[in-house]
This record gives sequence, structure tokens and C-alpha cells, in this order.
Amino acid sequence: MKFKPDSLSATPGRKVRLSQWATRMKPLYKSERDYKEKLLSDLLELESLQRVLYASGTRAVLLIFQALDAAGKDGAISHVMSGVNPEGCSVHSFKTPSTEEAAHDFLWRTTCRLPRRGEIGIFNRSYYEEVLIVKVHSEVLESETLPAELLDKESIWEGRYRSIVDFERHLHRNGTKVVKFYLHLSKEEQRRRFLARIDEPKKNWKFSLADVKERKYWGAYMKAYEEALGATTTKHAPWHVIPADDKLNARLMVSRIVIDAIKGLDLKMPKVTAARRRELQAIRRTLKK
Amino acid sequence: MKFKPDSLSATPGRKVRLSQWATRMKPLYKSERDYKEKLLSDLLELESLQRVLYASGTRAVLLIFQALDAAGKDGAISHVMSGVNPEGCSVHSFKTPSTEEAAHDFLWRTTCRLPRRGEIGIFNRSYYEEVLIVKVHSEVLESETLPAELLDKESIWEGRYRSIVDFERHLHRNGTKVVKFYLHLSKEEQRRRFLARIDEPKKNWKFSLADVKERKYWGAYMKAYEEALGATTTKHAPWHVIPADDKLNARLMVSRIVIDAIKGLDLKMPKVTAARRRELQAIRRTLKK
Repeated sequence: MKFKPDSLSATPGRKVRLSQWATRMKPLYKSERDYKEKLLSDLLELESLQRVLYASGTRAVLLIFQALDAAGKDGAISHVMSGVNPEGCSVHSFKTPSTEEAAHDFLWRTTCRLPRRGEIGIFNRSYYEEVLIVKVHSEVLESETLPAELLDKESIWEGRYRSIVDFERHLHRNGTKVVKFYLHLSKEEQRRRFLARIDEPKKNWKFSLADVKERKYWGAYMKAYEEALGATTTKHAPWHVIPADDKLNARLMVSRIVIDAIKGLDLKMPKVTAARRRELQAIRRTLKK
Repeated sequence: MKFKPDSLSATPGRKVRLSQWATRMKPLYKSERDYKEKLLSDLLELESLQRVLYASGTRAVLLIFQALDAAGKDGAISHVMSGVNPEGCSVHSFKTPSTEEAAHDFLWRTTCRLPRRGEIGIFNRSYYEEVLIVKVHSEVLESETLPAELLDKESIWEGRYRSIVDFERHLHRNGTKVVKFYLHLSKEEQRRRFLARIDEPKKNWKFSLADVKERKYWGAYMKAYEEALGATTTKHAPWHVIPADDKLNARLMVSRIVIDAIKGLDLKMPKVTAARRRELQAIRRTLKK
């Protein structure tokens, strides 16, 4: 099956109804062995694309991963990105904000961790948490020390969507390609994965009762995701809704989309001019002496 | 003379013609002694306003100072702000960007130094340099490692103005008051101040030949300032054009505008509820035992 990377992207200006997006799709692989071969081939391609990105140093790539618990964010990041040179690639996981972070505007802490040109930056959760978990548990807003008159429950989310769209457009104008993934997991598959975290001793460390308790907000999370995805999908930074019930398939789709995005930048190794070649030859002669 | 702080602010959506803005105005002080008394009275007022800002912790204040060399930015900052508690106030001077800074979008390095809620942040030069000196010396753009296709000389400035306006609106929505000062100096007064830097040994360290060389771009700078001030004056973050040929007068005007801006936030010391008062009394009894 030929996979079209843009077949999973939301459409700018159109509402997102997650119930109409699949959480499972026909696999891109025929067997586990076939999956490994395909992933390896992608890793090699990604590695060579990153080398050009790094050498040319004119573009940055920001990959944003958002999902509910157990949807496979960590696995997707580690499997898809493990081939690239870590010198040009960094992952930041955003958990509960520190006091210092909460006392700044909601884009501040992630902005300070943006990739520079030439690098790939990966956000495991991101500023989108501010319109997701904070919206579902709106009491969190109180802890953000905003003045009461800016806490209007009607307009605050619109303001945040707008800030995000403006910010990502600014990044686009300044050479950063933003690629956003929502790993779309079914409630039933999440239940199975939580059970596995209890049943398999090697997965015990990942289990958290708090995660299970969040399941009762499933509907509110779906609504928050639908609104956020709809409001912040733009031509230059669309959301990709990745069917995540099959982890292997999700990883292959993520890797194809990342490759497609970097290829789309049409980067070249820095050109060596004739003058520079002569200069290099002259230096070579000096070194040989 | 009664000074109206908003009499010096540019009007949103209207072009700025700097030749029509005074570089010298009738002094707000009658004598040097009167100046000192007025400034001291302002310092005391500012100090008490900052105490409330710090205690309430819900708003940040960002003061931006832009001007040509010798216009008095450092003097205005040190004289007007010397009364406030440095724990809640920090000054950042932005000079030539580092390699790391130049490899990020042009708002990045200043964003990482934004004040948190409760604090006053002062930018001595700022991201505005990116539409001022970089516009006058557009060869600087080449060193910013942007990809060639984003370096369109027509649209890049419009893009930057838009990024700035979007960014400041985002700050506004998130509780940061942005107050912008352009210290408006005449070319003749700048000449006099440069001569003083040569003639007075105590001022020698401030003299730089490069600054004098920039004088031949005076016209280009005026044009760049006019366009930047016009494009980025908004209702919530207008530019103040401060007549700067008289340093003392400029400082009094700056201090009045800062005071007016913080007063406008209408901050209150955090309220102590009846419950909290009972709690404090209970703790008091424990401590007395």
C-alpha cells in the first residue's frame, strides 16, 4: 500500500470530528519483519536528510507530539528518531510547569527550547497542553497567576488559539518547519495498554493511577482536541491525525510524514564555489609541506 | 506645566513623521534643584507601585528603550529606575547577537529574557533592532542564516512588523504591559554629545568611532524608525516619542509615563480574607507558645 503523507492531515478552516477519524488503518507492513525493514529504510533516509539540514543550517524543524496517555508518543519518538545524529536533534518533554514557567506567558517555556536553524527539535507535549489539559481541568488556570480580568472563560481559549496560530506563522516566516502529530487512540485500546502496564512487570514503572483516573474525562479531552486541532491547523503547520491503535503502523506513518516534510524544504548541501575550491587546494598544499 | 503622558504617544494606524515631532520641549522643571525634587518624588511613587506589582504577581511590565547613540537610554534607565527594588526588576541590553541567537527566529533571544508576572523587565535595545539597524544595514540579514527564499527584500519587513505586533498582542492577552520609548534626538545634539565624549576624560570610555560613522546613515535610520513606529504602534502598546535633546526633561517624561502605565493596571495588594485572617491569628498563637 502506497501511503500519502498528507492523507492524514486536517484541513485548514474546517472543523475536526475525531469520531470520523480512524484509530486503526490497514497496515503499511506485511509482517513484523517487513515493518523492521521498512522502518530501517526510513531511518537511513531520515539520517541523510538530517545531515543536509544540519550542513545547510538555514531551516529548523519542530516536531510536536500530542496525545492521551499510552498512545505511543515516547515509542514513536524513540523508534523514528533513533537514527539521527543527536548533535542536531533534541527532545524536550513538557510536564507540569515550574513556578518560574507558570509566571510567564503560556508560550514562554517552550519558546526557550526551540531548535536553532540546522536542528530538529522534538516536543513531547508542548504549548498545546495549555488548550488541552488546562481546558479540561480549568481550575489549573487559577494557578497560572493571571489577573482575574484576563481569565474570561469565554474568550481565553480563542485568545490562546490565536496566539498559537500567530506564533507558528512567525516561525514559518523565519525558517522553522512545524510538523504536528496527534496520536489518535481508541478508549478501548488505551484500556488494554493500561492493563498491560499492570500485568507485565517490565511495564510497571509506566503505570500511574492518575492516568487511569483521567479516563473519566475522555469526552472532554476529545472535545478539547477537536477544537484545538480545528483552530490551529494551517496550511504551513497542519495537524496530522495518526491512527495509533497499531503502534508499528503509527511509527511508519510518522516517519513517512517527517521525511516528506524535510524533503519538502528542498535543502541542498552548501555549494562550493570555484573560488572556494581553489582556496581549499591552496590550503591543501600548505598542509602537505 | 502639567504633563499628559499620552501626549507623546503615536497614534495606532497613522504614519509617523519624525520631523514633525519635537526633539526639545518646554521643561517640566524650573531649575536643576526642582528637577531633582520632581524626579525623587517620582522615584518614591514608582517604588511603591512596584511593591504592589510584585506582591500581586499577576502582571508583568516590559519597558523597551530604543534610540540612536547618545540619546540617553542608559541615563534614563539608571535615573528613572534606580529607586525600585532590583529583586523585581531586571535590565537586559541587547548587542550583536551571538551565533546561537542568530540561528533562531529574531524574537527568540529577547523572549527568553521576558519578565515574569510581578516583575518589571527593561530592554535596552530589543527585537526592534531587527527592523532598525538590520534594515539600514541590510547586509546583516545575510548573517542571520535564513534560507534565500525567505530573504525577500520587499516582504521581510512587513513580516517582521506583523510578527512583532502579533507577539505584543499575545503578551497583552497574557498580562504583560508593554511600554515603548523612542528617545528622539536631533542630529546636532548628537554631535554635541559625541564631542563631549571626546573632550571630557570621564566620558572617553563611551566614545566609539563606529558610532560617529553611523551618522552618515542618519536619514536611513529616521526612515526605518518612522516605519517601525508607525507599523507597531497599537492601542495596548503604543510608542512614546520622547524629546531627548534635554536629558533631564526626557527622564521626567519617561518616569511620568512609566508611573502612568503601572497605575493604569489598577493593581491591589492581595486581599486578606476573613478566613485567612483567622488562620494567621491561629498561627500567631502557636508561635507565641
